[in-house]
Amino acid sequence: MQPESENRAAVEKSAQSANEIRYVAGADVGGTNLRLALADLSGTILARWSTSTVGLRGPEAVVERICSGVRMMLQQVSAPCEMLRSIAIGVPGIADVENGVVVAASYLMGWKDVPLRALVESRLNVPAVVDNDVNVAAIGEQWAGSAKNATDFVFLAIGTGIGAGIVLNGHLYRGSSWAAGEIGYMLLPGAADLPASVDEPGALEKRIGGEGIKGQWKKICLPEESGFNATEIFDLALDGNPRAQTLLHQSATTLAQAIYNISRILNCPLFVLGGTVGLHRALCDAAQRLLDQWMASDSPRLVRSVLGADAQIMGALRLALDSERSCARLIST
Amino acid sequence: MQPESENRAAVEKSAQSANEIRYVAGADVGGTNLRLALADLSGTILARWSTSTVGLRGPEAVVERICSGVRMMLQQVSAPCEMLRSIAIGVPGIADVENGVVVAASYLMGWKDVPLRALVESRLNVPAVVDNDVNVAAIGEQWAGSAKNATDFVFLAIGTGIGAGIVLNGHLYRGSSWAAGEIGYMLLPGAADLPASVDEPGALEKRIGGEGIKGQWKKICLPEESGFNATEIFDLALDGNPRAQTLLHQSATTLAQAIYNISRILNCPLFVLGGTVGLHRALCDAAQRLLDQWMASDSPRLVRSVLGADAQIMGALRLALDSERSCARLIST
Repeated sequence: MQPESENRAAVEKSAQSANEIRYVAGADVGGTNLRLALADLSGTILARWSTSTVGLRGPEAVVERICSGVRMMLQQVSAPCEMLRSIAIGVPGIADVENGVVVAASYLMGWKDVPLRALVESRLNVPAVVDNDVNVAAIGEQWAGSAKNATDFVFLAIGTGIGAGIVLNGHLYRGSSWAAGEIGYMLLPGAADLPASVDEPGALEKRIGGEGIKGQWKKICLPEESGFNATEIFDLALDGNPRAQTLLHQSATTLAQAIYNISRILNCPLFVLGGTVGLHRALCDAAQRLLDQWMASDSPRLVRSVLGADAQIMGALRLALDSERSCARLIST
Repeated sequence: MQPESENRAAVEKSAQSANEIRYVAGADVGGTNLRLALADLSGTILARWSTSTVGLRGPEAVVERICSGVRMMLQQVSAPCEMLRSIAIGVPGIADVENGVVVAASYLMGWKDVPLRALVESRLNVPAVVDNDVNVAAIGEQWAGSAKNATDFVFLAIGTGIGAGIVLNGHLYRGSSWAAGEIGYMLLPGAADLPASVDEPGALEKRIGGEGIKGQWKKICLPEESGFNATEIFDLALDGNPRAQTLLHQSATTLAQAIYNISRILNCPLFVLGGTVGLHRALCDAAQRLLDQWMASDSPRLVRSVLGADAQIMGALRLALDSERSCARLIST
């Protein structure tokens, strides 16, 4: 990959080949893990890297890890740093995409107004894009997952937290202050009349978020069953455990109510379920049955994410590829 | 307005002036009234006409009234029928705008798959546009009302029925099967776990629709107060009647919950309240106070429609003007 000689023709040839072998990076910053991938301009993933984010304090430490990871991946493919052309980063919080600022993120030691794009760009010297992780996952699903070619759909991430990425007329709808899809706070039958404060989990999150399900399980399970998480509880339900079946039915009802409300507002034909809880087949199937009962032919179709935990990484790569292309267009004009 | 002579120059001059004096019509088909307006191409209303729709059976009778009304208005301004260039019609139901078909309308003797556009076009010989009445009202508010120049807002019509017109990125979002904004069915705290069947009023409509409010009032009012409607009950609340204040607070809480849910999904900064119930100042003010408490700086702004009952007519005229312009462009190219 180094120029073979100093003569002009060789330098030009080298510049040309460097142009051909270009890379983009995608990052998924989570509360427990940072995951990175490197892809060529066709979107093929050539390297991956990940590390723990537990206990990381402040944005600088996270940026440092992102940059180290990118360098490690470039080394893996024996490419110099100049071959990286752009990076996109999904963050678990509200992101001002226009200014590249993380407005608020509850999982990252309470980040507030962090200029993440500027921090990353000054270190890597390439254009960076910053967006909410659920939005990024929706883009991933639309590009290479369960919503391929769909113009109108909602991606629902149901894990520890709950959020929605809303794609309308082919494009993400991010809201007037970048907070569209914050559905963890949605008010539903059986919930308190008043919304939770923003510092505590919202009404929907309390009921079908991972911790919420574990909490409800502890109230109804046998002592020896108390250690299970949501996925394991839904597995128990499939195995015929009646207490787990009760909780599965409750969770599916709540999820179906939330999807019902979003459907009545947006009339979206497709919901893609992701996140550790949302990916469970039993939950998806039970919620679909309820919606079919309630809405008959108007019922939206629920599908599980085929990308799973990779939805964010794929979406980040797609955003990085788009950013690379628009920069290339700007330079060529 | 008749050609003064048969020579070619006079005919051309006449055609030219006919081109200059062109009109569009807007129609608002309601469960009790049909209202029409005629405007010139600047959007200035020059004539109005209305009639009752109570007891009208079948689309043909409604189309007949629309056409008579249009002819009467053209007569009022001494214009021949050829000077009408387009018409737009708002209907209280789900409208397939692309095909000009009323898919379903509960208030019009249960219209189903009525090709209203074709029926009107074959009678009036001008392009017709058919859309849901709440969507049409949202367009009216954006053009000449409380959402002037807003790119992202929700128009909430709260009368006998409840519906939303959703404007995102400057354009109405109508949903994949034209049913976006059917929020009367939204599930909220205190409502039944299961949605109502589509033949009965939805959970939200039961609680803050005009009939729903009257029904709740009858349970708590003194015998001599039982005849009041929603507007009069809210007036009583402003006058200090404690029973009316209780119902106002309940209604405002429900409305604030519905707006809260839509806000968490769409992050829209502005809600315009219309319809006989929605226009009441006391309801709007009380709901705004609750949202400000719950959401602090994220709270959307609630404003009452300044167009009131004219929102639909103004929106229909706007749609007719847009249709006239795109037809004129097509002809000139």
